Amino acid sequence: MSLQGGSSARTMSPGGLFDGVLARGAVAATVDDAAWLQAMLDFEAELARAQAAVGLLDPAQAEAIAAQARAELYDAGAIGEAAAGIGNPAGPLVNALTARVRDAGDATAAGQVHRGATSQDVIDTATMLVARSALAALLEDLTAAADAAATLARAHRDTPMAGRTLLQQAVPTTFGLQAAGWMASLDSAAVALRAVPFAVQLGGAAGTLASLGDDGIAVLTELARRLDLPEPTLPWHTDRTRIAALAGGLGTAAGAIAKAGGDVVLLSQTEVGEVREGSAGGSSTMPHKANPVAAIAARGNARRAPGLVATLLASMDHEHQRAAGAWHAEWAPLLELLVATGSAAAWLRTSLGGLEVNPARMRENLGATGGLLLAERVSTALTQALGRGAAHELVERATQESVASGRSFADVLEADDQVREQLGEGAVARLLDPTAYLGSAGAFVDRALNSRFV
Amino acid sequence: MSLQGGSSARTMSPGGLFDGVLARGAVAATVDDAAWLQAMLDFEAELARAQAAVGLLDPAQAEAIAAQARAELYDAGAIGEAAAGIGNPAGPLVNALTARVRDAGDATAAGQVHRGATSQDVIDTATMLVARSALAALLEDLTAAADAAATLARAHRDTPMAGRTLLQQAVPTTFGLQAAGWMASLDSAAVALRAVPFAVQLGGAAGTLASLGDDGIAVLTELARRLDLPEPTLPWHTDRTRIAALAGGLGTAAGAIAKAGGDVVLLSQTEVGEVREGSAGGSSTMPHKANPVAAIAARGNARRAPGLVATLLASMDHEHQRAAGAWHAEWAPLLELLVATGSAAAWLRTSLGGLEVNPARMRENLGATGGLLLAERVSTALTQALGRGAAHELVERATQESVASGRSFADVLEADDQVREQLGEGAVARLLDPTAYLGSAGAFVDRALNSRFV
Amino acid sequence: MSLQGGSSARTMSPGGLFDGVLARGAVAATVDDAAWLQAMLDFEAELARAQAAVGLLDPAQAEAIAAQARAELYDAGAIGEAAAGIGNPAGPLVNALTARVRDAGDATAAGQVHRGATSQDVIDTATMLVARSALAALLEDLTAAADAAATLARAHRDTPMAGRTLLQQAVPTTFGLQAAGWMASLDSAAVALRAVPFAVQLGGAAGTLASLGDDGIAVLTELARRLDLPEPTLPWHTDRTRIAALAGGLGTAAGAIAKAGGDVVLLSQTEVGEVREGSAGGSSTMPHKANPVAAIAARGNARRAPGLVATLLASMDHEHQRAAGAWHAEWAPLLELLVATGSAAAWLRTSLGGLEVNPARMRENLGATGGLLLAERVSTALTQALGRGAAHELVERATQESVASGRSFADVLEADDQVREQLGEGAVARLLDPTAYLGSAGAFVDRALNSRFV
Amino acid sequence: MSLQGGSSARTMSPGGLFDGVLARGAVAATVDDAAWLQAMLDFEAELARAQAAVGLLDPAQAEAIAAQARAELYDAGAIGEAAAGIGNPAGPLVNALTARVRDAGDATAAGQVHRGATSQDVIDTATMLVARSALAALLEDLTAAADAAATLARAHRDTPMAGRTLLQQAVPTTFGLQAAGWMASLDSAAVALRAVPFAVQLGGAAGTLASLGDDGIAVLTELARRLDLPEPTLPWHTDRTRIAALAGGLGTAAGAIAKAGGDVVLLSQTEVGEVREGSAGGSSTMPHKANPVAAIAARGNARRAPGLVATLLASMDHEHQRAAGAWHAEWAPLLELLVATGSAAAWLRTSLGGLEVNPARMRENLGATGGLLLAERVSTALTQALGRGAAHELVERATQESVASGRSFADVLEADDQVREQLGEGAVARLLDPTAYLGSAGAFVDRALNSRFV
Repeated sequence: MSLQGGSSARTMSPGGLFDGVLARGAVAATVDDAAWLQAMLDFEAELARAQAAVGLLDPAQAEAIAAQARAELYDAGAIGEAAAGIGNPAGPLVNALTARVRDAGDATAAGQVHRGATSQDVIDTATMLVARSALAALLEDLTAAADAAATLARAHRDTPMAGRTLLQQAVPTTFGLQAAGWMASLDSAAVALRAVPFAVQLGGAAGTLASLGDDGIAVLTELARRLDLPEPTLPWHTDRTRIAALAGGLGTAAGAIAKAGGDVVLLSQTEVGEVREGSAGGSSTMPHKANPVAAIAARGNARRAPGLVATLLASMDHEHQRAAGAWHAEWAPLLELLVATGSAAAWLRTSLGGLEVNPARMRENLGATGGLLLAERVSTALTQALGRGAAHELVERATQESVASGRSFADVLEADDQVREQLGEGAVARLLDPTAYLGSAGAFVDRALNSRFV
Repeated sequence: MSLQGGSSARTMSPGGLFDGVLARGAVAATVDDAAWLQAMLDFEAELARAQAAVGLLDPAQAEAIAAQARAELYDAGAIGEAAAGIGNPAGPLVNALTARVRDAGDATAAGQVHRGATSQDVIDTATMLVARSALAALLEDLTAAADAAATLARAHRDTPMAGRTLLQQAVPTTFGLQAAGWMASLDSAAVALRAVPFAVQLGGAAGTLASLGDDGIAVLTELARRLDLPEPTLPWHTDRTRIAALAGGLGTAAGAIAKAGGDVVLLSQTEVGEVREGSAGGSSTMPHKANPVAAIAARGNARRAPGLVATLLASMDHEHQRAAGAWHAEWAPLLELLVATGSAAAWLRTSLGGLEVNPARMRENLGATGGLLLAERVSTALTQALGRGAAHELVERATQESVASGRSFADVLEADDQVREQLGEGAVARLLDPTAYLGSAGAFVDRALNSRFV
Repeated sequence: MSLQGGSSARTMSPGGLFDGVLARGAVAATVDDAAWLQAMLDFEAELARAQAAVGLLDPAQAEAIAAQARAELYDAGAIGEAAAGIGNPAGPLVNALTARVRDAGDATAAGQVHRGATSQDVIDTATMLVARSALAALLEDLTAAADAAATLARAHRDTPMAGRTLLQQAVPTTFGLQAAGWMASLDSAAVALRAVPFAVQLGGAAGTLASLGDDGIAVLTELARRLDLPEPTLPWHTDRTRIAALAGGLGTAAGAIAKAGGDVVLLSQTEVGEVREGSAGGSSTMPHKANPVAAIAARGNARRAPGLVATLLASMDHEHQRAAGAWHAEWAPLLELLVATGSAAAWLRTSLGGLEVNPARMRENLGATGGLLLAERVSTALTQALGRGAAHELVERATQESVASGRSFADVLEADDQVREQLGEGAVARLLDPTAYLGSAGAFVDRALNSRFV
Repeated sequence: MSLQGGSSARTMSPGGLFDGVLARGAVAATVDDAAWLQAMLDFEAELARAQAAVGLLDPAQAEAIAAQARAELYDAGAIGEAAAGIGNPAGPLVNALTARVRDAGDATAAGQVHRGATSQDVIDTATMLVARSALAALLEDLTAAADAAATLARAHRDTPMAGRTLLQQAVPTTFGLQAAGWMASLDSAAVALRAVPFAVQLGGAAGTLASLGDDGIAVLTELARRLDLPEPTLPWHTDRTRIAALAGGLGTAAGAIAKAGGDVVLLSQTEVGEVREGSAGGSSTMPHKANPVAAIAARGNARRAPGLVATLLASMDHEHQRAAGAWHAEWAPLLELLVATGSAAAWLRTSLGGLEVNPARMRENLGATGGLLLAERVSTALTQALGRGAAHELVERATQESVASGRSFADVLEADDQVREQLGEGAVARLLDPTAYLGSAGAFVDRALNSRFV
C-alpha cells in the first residue's frame, strides 16, 4: 500500500483509468492526499508558532512541532482509516503528529500540539490553502484558454462566417467576434474566481477560542499572517458563504468552458468543417474522422460542475456550532469540482490553443443558402423605399421562390422589377456580399481585446 | 384582477394557493407578467429614443413608439399564447406594439419599432431590468433579517448558552455570537448580490448590430444610458456569466438563510426551548405547540435554490449566436430562484425580527450535563500541572464516573485528591462556571457589529 | 377566468407571458389551483364518507360535508393568503369548508370535518391525486411522441444516413434506427412513470391515527378504496420514496425527450438539413430560416428537470413525524417538474409528429466524404487478406492521401495495386456503397417495433 | 505506489485521507480500477468467445484472447494516461490486450481482438457489470440497515415516545412506529434498486453492428448470455434511461438513509437523549459528548447524491450515435454516486445496528409538557359533550393557563368544573396517559413487519 493513498485509488474515484480524461492539468496534483496532509500540517505548525509569537508557547517547542509537520512523514491511508472513529481525518493526524513530536524527545511540546484548535479549524483552513493553490493552477489554464481565444479573435477579426441562431444560419458575423465572446466569458469567470474571499479558520471547540483565554484573537491574527490568509471578523465554521463563492465561481467557469467547447464541437462537424483541433483524430477503423477530443473532454468535465455546486449550496445549513453531516458533505464535492473544472480548463486550453481555422470553408458555408443569409439586409434596404411591411413581404416571397425553384436568391431578386427599380443595377450583388454586412463586429472585437489589457 | 394572469395561475405555478407560504415578500410582485411586459416595453421605447438621439430616427416617431410602451395596454395571456409560434414572447409583443403605433396613426413610426434588435435583446435586457428590481426588493428583506440578527447579537452579547457541535453540547458560547454568525453570513450574501454585473443587451440578429450600419455602438451606448444599465464591451447573448453570477449570489443567500432558519428551528424544539418565534403557534387540536412557522417556511423556500442554480449553470452552453433550448431553459428557473430566495428572506426577517429569547432556559440547558460541558476547561487547567495526556485521562475517568454513577461532574471532581491538590480549594466550582469560559465571544461580537457599520 | 388565480400570476411564475412556450400541453391544467382545491376537498369528502362507512359518522353528516366539497365554492387566493399563518393551505381550507357546512345548517356535521386527519394528510393525498391526473395527461403526449418516432422508424427502416459519433460522420446507419432509438427511450421512461407507487396518506397528528381510536385502519382502508388509491402499509408522511420515484421517472422522461429533441435540432442545421419540422419557420427579417421551434422548446423545458429532481431528492430528509421545511420545499418543484416535463413531451409530440425527412439530403451527406465513411468496411475486407495491422495501415494511408490530394477515397483505393490485387475489380465501388453496409439496422428496427406491441 | 492507480489517488479524489468517512463499506472496492479493468476485459474475452460460438472465430483464438483478459496484467495508470489521446480508456486497453495476445504468439488472434465492437460498447457494458456488483454490495448494507430498523421496530413496538411535528412535541407515538417508517423507506429504495434494467451494450461503430455482417444479433445474444446480462432490443448507446433508473434508485436510497440518519442525530441530542449510538463518542477534550458519528457520516454521504443524480439526468442528451461530452460526463458521477450511497448505507447499518434506545428518557420527555402533549385527546373527549368549537376553546384556554402559570396541564384541567362535570372523576389522569393514546401504532408496526416477510 503506497504511502499517500493507494487505497483511495481503489475506492473514491474512477481511478487512474479515467484520469487522463477527467483529471487533466495541474489542479489534480494540488488536491491530492499529500497536499491535504501538508496543508493540515501547515496549520498545526503555524498555530504553534503563532502561539509562540504571542507568548503562549516556548518558541523552541513551536519549532519542535513544526519540525514534524512534513507530509511525507505520515501515512494518509492509515490516517484515513482512523478517521472513521471520529468522522474526520484531523483527529488522527493530530494524534500522529503528537506522537512524532513526543518520539522526537519533546514531550512538553507534544502536549502543546493543536492547542486551542478543533478538528474543523484544521480542515477548514486546509481547505482554504488547498483551494487557493488549486485555483492558482486552474486560473493558469483558464487564462491560457482565454489568451488562445484572444489570439483567435485578433487573427480572425475580419474573417466572415455564418452567424447561427437556433443552429440555423442567420446573418453573417466574424469568427473573431465569436472567439472574442469565448474570451470575454472565460475572463469574467476568472474575475469571479480571483475574488473568492479566502480566510483562515480558528475558533476552537465552539467558536469562542475559550481555551486560549484572552489571547484568542491575537493568535488568530498571527496565524492568518503566517499562512498568508485574510483574518476573518468571526470564525466562519458554520458560515459557508466562502465555500459558496468558490463553488459559484467554479460553476461559472465550467459554464463558460462548456460554451466555448460546445461551439468547437459544432464547428468541427463533418458537415460544417470550419475549425479542426490540431490534435483531432479518428480511430484506427475510422481514420477519416477529426474528433475534437479536447473540446469534447472539456465539455464532459464541465458538465459535472452544476450538480456539485448544488450539493455545496445545499449543504450550507450547518447546525449550531458544527454541522452533523453538512460539513462532511462538502469535502468530496469541493475537490471534485476543483478537479473537474480544472480539467475542463486544461482541455479547453489544448483545444483553442491548437485550433485550425478554415476561412475558406466559412466562406463556402456562407454561400450555402445562395444569399438567403443576407435577406435581412435586402429587407432593410427596401424598407426605406417600400415601408417595412411591403419590404418584408417582397423578401419573403423571393425567399420562398428561391427555395421552391432552386434558383439562387440573387437570381430571383435580380429578376424582380420592383427590386431593380428601387435599388438600382448591381445593388443585389452588393447587398448579398456577406463581408459587407458585418456591422460592428470588428469594433466589438477591438473593444474586447483592448479592455482586456487596460 | 387583470385578465392575462389567470391562465398562468392555472398552469405554471403552485398557484395562489401556495403563495402565502412560497411567495412571501415584495419580490413576487416585481417579477409578474406586468413587470415583464413593462421591462420589455421599456427596452423598445428607449431603443427608439436612443436611435433618435443618434440621428437614426425622427424624435417624434420615437415618442410615438414610447407612447404605446405601457404594459397595461397589452394582454400578457394573448402574447404568451402567440409566443408558441416562434418560441418566445418578444416577437408577439413587438407585433402588438407595432400594431398599436400604426393604429395610433403613425405608420412610419410603426415601421421603426424594434429596429436593429432581435428577440433575445428584448428578453435579455428585460431580464436585467426585472432582476434588478427583484434584487432591490430581496435585499431589503435580506438586510432587515441581518439587522434583526445584529440586534439579537448586540442584546445577547453576553448571554451564555451551550455551544453545540454535531448537535451535542460542547462548550459554552453566547447567543450573541451565534446571532452574529447569522448576521455575517447574511451580510456576505448581500455583498455578493450587490456585485452582480448587470448590463444592457443589444446585438441584433447575430450580435453584430449589422442592420444599424455604423451606428450600432452609438445606439448601444445611448440605450444603456437611458435604461441606467452598464454598457457591456460585447453583446453578451451567449455569454451567460452575468446570469451565473446572479444565480450564485441567490444560492449563497438561500444557504445563509437556511443556516439561520435551521438554528431557529432547532433552538425552538420543545426539549430545547431557548427561543420562540413571536408569532409561533400550534394548531387548534395542539394549542401547546410553538411551531416556528416563519423559520420553517424560510427553510422550505431556501431549499429550492440549489437545484435552480444548477439548472442555470447547466444552461450556460449556448450554441453559437443563440441557443436552441439553453436560453429558454433559463426563464422559469431564474424567476423561481428570485421568488424562492426572496420569499425565504422575507420569512427569515419575520422570524428573527420577532424572536423571543429565553436566557433562563439557556442557563438551564447549560447545566443539563452537570458541568460536563466544561470538561475541556478542567483539562486545560490540569494540563499545566499534569501534562496533557494525564490531564485528559483524569477528566475522561471523572466523566465516565459521573455518567455511570449519576453524581454530578462537580462532585466527582471535588472528591478527587489529585484535582484538589493541583487546583486548590474552590477551583472546581470556578472552573465549571460557564459564564467564565466564553473566551473571545464578546470580542468577536463587537468586531462583527463594528465592521458592519464602518 | 377565476378570481383566485390572478394573484399567483403576479408572483410565483413567469406568468402567462411564457406559458405558450413553458406550459404547453394538457398537464398544466391538471395542476392548477382549481385542481388542487378539488383534490383536497375530495380527500375531505371521502374521509367523511369513509368514517360513515365504518360507523363513526352519520351518513347524512358525511353527505352534508361532501356537498360543500366543490372547488368552485372556494377562493384559492384567500386560502393561500391565510396559509401563511400555519405554513400550509390545508388549515384554511378546512376552516372554510367547516364554515360552509355550518352555514348550510349542519353544525354537527361541521364539527366532524377533517376528523382524525392532519394538514399533511390532506396535502399529501391531494398531491397523489393531482400527480396521478397530471401523469395521465403527460403520458398521453409522451406516448404520442413515441408513436410518432415509431412511425418514422417504420417509414425509414431502410433510409440510409450518416451515423455520427462525437458529431463526426462515422459509418452509415439508417434514419429508422435513429428514430427507433428515440422511441425505445421514450417508451422506457413511460414504463417508469406508469410504475410510480401512488398511495393515500392518512396518519393523523403524528401518524398513529390515535384520535380515531380502534377504527383508524378501517377508515384508512375505506378512504383508499373511495379515492381509488392504493392503501399503504404505513402512513408515509415522512417516507418520501413515492415522491422520489415520481421525480426519478419524470427526470428520466425529460432526459429521453432532450435526446430526441437535440437530434432534431442537429439534423435540422442549415448545413445538415436532413429533417425539417413541419411548422418550422424563421422571423420576418430572416424568412429563410427553418427554426425547429418545437424541438428547441422541448429541450428548453426538459433542461429544467434535473435540478428539480435534485431538489426533491435533497428534501427527503423529513424530521421525525413532520418535516420543518423539507415538506414545504417539495410543493413547487414537484409541480414545476410535472409542468416542465409535460410541456417538453407536448412539444416533442409536435416536433416528431410533423417531422419532414429528407432522404435525398441524407444520401448527399453520406457522400460528403467521398466514401471515407466506409473506411471501416474496406479495413475489414482487407483484414482477412493482410491482417488487421497492415489493413489499417493501408486504409489510413489512403485516407490521408485522399484528404491531402482532394481526390476521392474511391479513386485513391482503386489506384492502389494491393487493393486491386486482394479485393478484385469492382470491389471498391461495392465496398463504398453505404446502403450495403447497414448491418443489423433493419433487424433492430423490426425488433424494437415488434417488442412494442407484444 | 501501487500499479493500478496510485496516480489517481493523487488526483481525482479526496484520497485515502477521507476514505474512512466517505468510502465506507464494500462498494468502494467493487468500483476500483482493478474492477473496471476486469469488467472491460470480461467484455473482450466473452466477445471473442461469442464470436467463436457463432462461427466467426476459431475457438482457439478466442481462448488466446481470453487468456490475456486478466486485470492484473495491465497498468491502469498507463492506460489512463493514454486515454487522453482518444478520450476514453477502452482504446488503450484494447491496444494493450492486442499486444499481449500477439506477444503470446498468436498474431491472428491478436487481429481479432475487439472485433466488431467500439469503445463505447466496452465501457457501457463494463459500467453495467461494475454497477451490478456495486449494487449487490450496496444492497447488502442497505438491507442490513433495514433489518436493524425492523429489529428496533419489533423490540419497541409498544415503547411510547413523543411524536414530533415541525420539531415540536405533538401527540405520543411509539419508537417502534418511527423505526418501522425507516425500515419501510429503506426497503422501498431497495426494491427500486433491484429493478434497475441492466443490459449488455454492443452496437459497433454506429450501432448497426455492420462489421459483423449478418451475424451481429447472434453475437449480441451470445455475449449477453455469457455475461449474464439481459439482451436489449436495441443497442442503447445513446438511450441512457438505464443509467437514469440506476441514478434515480440510488438517489432514492440516499434520501431514505438521510431521513433515518437525521432522526438518529436529532434523537441523540444532549437535550433529547432518547437514543445513543453504540460507538458514540466525544473527543479527548470533550469526553462527555455522545457524537452519533455513524449517523452523521451517513447523512454526510447521502447529501452528495442529489447533485450527482442531477448531473446524470442532465447528461442524457447524447447526440446522434455517440455523445460529444455527455457520455464522458457520466463516468465519475456514477461511480461517486455508487460509493457515496454505498458508504451512507454502510454507516447507517452501523448506526442502527448498534443503537441504544432509552425508553426511560422517552417517557421523561413525554412528560416534559406536563400533559400538554395529550391536549388533542382531551379535545376529542370533550367534543362529544361540548361540540368541537367549545371543546377546542376550553382546551386552548387551559393550555394557556398552564403555560402562563407554570401549573401542570393536569392540574389546570382537574380544577376546571366543566371538565370534571363532563368527563367525571379520574378522567383527566386517564386521558393524559400517553401510553393509552397510541391509536394504530402497534397495528401499523405489525403490518409493516409482516408485509416484509410475505
